[in-house]
Amino acid sequence: MEQEKGTTIVVFSGELDKVMAAFIIANGAAAYGHKVTMFFTFWGLNTLKDEAASPGKKGPLEKMFGWMMPKGANKLGLSKMHYLGIGPKLIKHVIKKHKAMTVPQLIELAQEQDIKLVACTMTMDLLGIKQEEMMDGIEYGGVAAYIGDAENANTNLFI
Amino acid sequence: MEQEKGTTIVVFSGELDKVMAAFIIANGAAAYGHKVTMFFTFWGLNTLKDEAASPGKKGPLEKMFGWMMPKGANKLGLSKMHYLGIGPKLIKHVIKKHKAMTVPQLIELAQEQDIKLVACTMTMDLLGIKQEEMMDGIEYGGVAAYIGDAENANTNLFI
Amino acid sequence: MEQEKGTTIVVFSGELDKVMAAFIIANGAAAYGHKVTMFFTFWGLNTLKDEAASPGKKGPLEKMFGWMMPKGANKLGLSKMHYLGIGPKLIKHVIKKHKAMTVPQLIELAQEQDIKLVACTMTMDLLGIKQEEMMDGIEYGGVAAYIGDAENANTNLFI
Repeated sequence: MEQEKGTTIVVFSGELDKVMAAFIIANGAAAYGHKVTMFFTFWGLNTLKDEAASPGKKGPLEKMFGWMMPKGANKLGLSKMHYLGIGPKLIKHVIKKHKAMTVPQLIELAQEQDIKLVACTMTMDLLGIKQEEMMDGIEYGGVAAYIGDAENANTNLFI
Repeated sequence: MEQEKGTTIVVFSGELDKVMAAFIIANGAAAYGHKVTMFFTFWGLNTLKDEAASPGKKGPLEKMFGWMMPKGANKLGLSKMHYLGIGPKLIKHVIKKHKAMTVPQLIELAQEQDIKLVACTMTMDLLGIKQEEMMDGIEYGGVAAYIGDAENANTNLFI
Repeated sequence: MEQEKGTTIVVFSGELDKVMAAFIIANGAAAYGHKVTMFFTFWGLNTLKDEAASPGKKGPLEKMFGWMMPKGANKLGLSKMHYLGIGPKLIKHVIKKHKAMTVPQLIELAQEQDIKLVACTMTMDLLGIKQEEMMDGIEYGGVAAYIGDAENANTNLFI
């Protein structure tokens, strides 16, 4: 039995540049017929937050994590050159100037291409993030779901 | 001949959150029957240091590296939100509250599951780290050992 | 048909230590008969810049990126312990003391071993980097080129 072409990406980092790279590779792989899974864990989880959602009732610790972490793909910082937030603005400006895709657009394209976007339930439990805070059209799973998909894929990246 | 299920992880980073992610994936893969190798190099090497060991005699440069680098899995910082050490304490608090596993417990589980923990000898030579400083039950090897294991594994990550 | 032994590495990070790790793995894999592709994107692209090249005419945004980013493999910083530039000097000192290879030497070895070094054209377009600024003997390609090589390789890393 031939192995299906597949790509999985663990999106651990929540920085704009790394998340962009993850989606560019994922969308590229999907365009070439790969079955693609992106597994969002730790800081990467912030990418899938729904900007408009209310966080609901939280304990003091969960509130603290909520304040410290960016809420959604439009709020991500850069891994380098953050410079008081100027870096992300510069990158977004360059993206606009070159008519390249923003992260929200890359997410939309990923969903159109049936890329499986999985939010790590263990991280959600640890940091007190609820499903109501997350965007629509994503799946929820733990490390077992990731291992299963990675076994069937040839390209497995951790970003 | 069918390829055995296998996972290798290069643990380059020495941050608490990334090391946790590495061990969670490794332990998950081992639980699903994968043969797993974790190859600790550069800053990742600090994870395998024995907290109680004496560093022994060192030259001035080796001493300087020794001072600057965390000594063992309990001393690792975070890749984000370090905030004068509050971040790691917060994460450890959350882990305790949720009865999740700490890094030392994840290492123990890895050893129980026969995950191969390899310390990169090249990094040890460069930074003047000796085998007496490292925890028991680990192996020592170079890039050749890693390449060999990666060839036989389907999932190969760099963290 | 048996799959050829292959390794691909996306070099996203531009830090000295991560770039060193990437080249050590790549050169090791090539020495064991792997077909190796290194795909340099985002900050990793700085590794392949020709130190001696003139940047040519640039717009104000492109100039700003030019100022902010290191120019060539000798100018890269560390991911940890940067300490006003002392960290990279210390590492370079240790490399020299142990007669280990510097990044420019690792690049040379990679080229001798026919490792394919690919500069990401999308990043070059976005940041306004021109081919005249890059070192000789490299290839240029986009995500499609990377996906193609990754499909034929067993070990695919993102660094």
